[in-house]
Amino acid sequence: MRDFDGDRLIVGIDAGGTSTRATLLTRDGQCLGYGKSGSGNPTSAGMQLAGESIVDAMSLALGAAGREIGEVDHVVAAMAGHGAGGDVRWLIDTLAVAGYDGALGFESDLLALYFSGTAEQKGYAIVSGTGAAVVRVSGGRLEATSDGVGWLLGDRGSGFWIGHHAALAAVEDLDGRGPATALTEAVLDALQVVPSDFSLGYGRPAKLEALVRTIYLGRPVELARLAPLVFAAADADEIARGILLRAGELLAQTFASVHRGSGPVVVGGSVLAQEGLLSEIFRRLVLDREPQARFIPVADGVVGAAALALRHAGVVVDGEGHARLTASVAAARAR
Amino acid sequence: MRDFDGDRLIVGIDAGGTSTRATLLTRDGQCLGYGKSGSGNPTSAGMQLAGESIVDAMSLALGAAGREIGEVDHVVAAMAGHGAGGDVRWLIDTLAVAGYDGALGFESDLLALYFSGTAEQKGYAIVSGTGAAVVRVSGGRLEATSDGVGWLLGDRGSGFWIGHHAALAAVEDLDGRGPATALTEAVLDALQVVPSDFSLGYGRPAKLEALVRTIYLGRPVELARLAPLVFAAADADEIARGILLRAGELLAQTFASVHRGSGPVVVGGSVLAQEGLLSEIFRRLVLDREPQARFIPVADGVVGAAALALRHAGVVVDGEGHARLTASVAAARAR
Repeated sequence: MRDFDGDRLIVGIDAGGTSTRATLLTRDGQCLGYGKSGSGNPTSAGMQLAGESIVDAMSLALGAAGREIGEVDHVVAAMAGHGAGGDVRWLIDTLAVAGYDGALGFESDLLALYFSGTAEQKGYAIVSGTGAAVVRVSGGRLEATSDGVGWLLGDRGSGFWIGHHAALAAVEDLDGRGPATALTEAVLDALQVVPSDFSLGYGRPAKLEALVRTIYLGRPVELARLAPLVFAAADADEIARGILLRAGELLAQTFASVHRGSGPVVVGGSVLAQEGLLSEIFRRLVLDREPQARFIPVADGVVGAAALALRHAGVVVDGEGHARLTASVAAARAR
Repeated sequence: MRDFDGDRLIVGIDAGGTSTRATLLTRDGQCLGYGKSGSGNPTSAGMQLAGESIVDAMSLALGAAGREIGEVDHVVAAMAGHGAGGDVRWLIDTLAVAGYDGALGFESDLLALYFSGTAEQKGYAIVSGTGAAVVRVSGGRLEATSDGVGWLLGDRGSGFWIGHHAALAAVEDLDGRGPATALTEAVLDALQVVPSDFSLGYGRPAKLEALVRTIYLGRPVELARLAPLVFAAADADEIARGILLRAGELLAQTFASVHRGSGPVVVGGSVLAQEGLLSEIFRRLVLDREPQARFIPVADGVVGAAALALRHAGVVVDGEGHARLTASVAAARAR
């Protein structure tokens, strides 16, 4: 027999590719504890490591509040690609081993990002980090997603896209197909490209051969780490400026393709967090479509994962509740 | 002691990623035998398999003419990425095991393609197959290369580029970011995409989720096999037409970046071998730059590899000699 639900605790998990964050919550939306661990994405980290990260973050949040796992009756994990329907046995089992036998729910990482910024049931979230996607939320549910289809098929305007275009600009500069750009030396430096005496015999500059060789030795998605070079070069370099301008336009196009009526625009990810040309172009083009648009920057999906966990437990989070939750989570993170 | 060189035979090898072709030649440019085997590219097939393919093709050419490997004193292999400077021990050793102890030379696959079309010492070769590159030849040597930097960094207007853009068009159509196109169903069919009941929960069409999943399961370069869908759809589909038009423009841009003065334009690869919009645009844009341009289509680098092998052996191949060599190789291939 369970205790009266009102005394039992709730855990919200924001499981990302880099880190996993857990909040321990009361049913009145107070955050008692916060914990952070490693990658919780089963696709990139593997199911075992992801499960361990989730348990670790949860244990840290419980420990910070001096509470026990037996007091928790709802866990909700927000993560990429693991909404309803997938085989989630891996996490159920891992939590069972850790002593948890309550309810387990899954939500989209993008919906968590959205609810990190607002309690409104209709609106938009855009994220541009390594990848890029825009979602439309309606009735509190994820109604449509545009882009977010990965580096080979989209993610237009993402960190990968920007870094890839820095690499392309450098290659085309060295190849004579494109204009000179400060990005060329910046890319060669960042990738520590060392021209060798060996030549493929195509009459190409040694730097170009070495750059091409270096890039193919890595994984394509690693080009995302060239993105900061483009932001750094934009003041003085027209090519870099052009890349940022186009990235901002592409993100606005992705937004436009899911835009149906007004709502807050929650903005996440490292690319749009940078002030400057890209963000300005993006916001201007969004405002052209929706003059009343409110942009709400968020750092991550932690508050949204907490709000979704409360919703799973039957707690309605309204605007005031959201503001209290946000403040309470911030206080717990600061402890 | 060797016999008088004039009696000794020469082998030209055109070593490609799909097949390897050898010609057995006399010093007066007569092709005695021809042989064909599997992949001779050490990068894609591995050094052992590539070496075996080269020996096999050579043995077949010798067998067709009833000659022995001991009669050969020059072997020249034309292949991607193995001009002077690389470690070519793998091929020297493999040939030694097969009983060959004569001279071994390497040439660029693109230079072989060029000399398959002409004996002129100055001109251009463009190839658009899976990849795409343009070279400028001067004094009979490869003087400059543009593009040919692979699917992630260039190969613009190649089969990969066209196939990739077919995939992008399908994704953007299904995603609502792009216009409807006949390519969507064609791509879904060609990749045998089967939508599953499982959903990632992003509100995306099941077909889109399945298409994205299918493409990431394969290697990016495999998208090249979608290129024929674009050619097939171009009559009735504006998006397909736009892809071919842009591919033709990109190939002409690559040509323009190495173009310095007049010379024949040798054209190879499956993309430019197709008559229609793409080839027409390409030729028109090249003629805008060089009104006298002569386009010389070639099927492969076999004749050029033979011509380069003769050059290594000190034989000058002039226009007449090239015409005789071309006819003689064609006759040997037909036997």
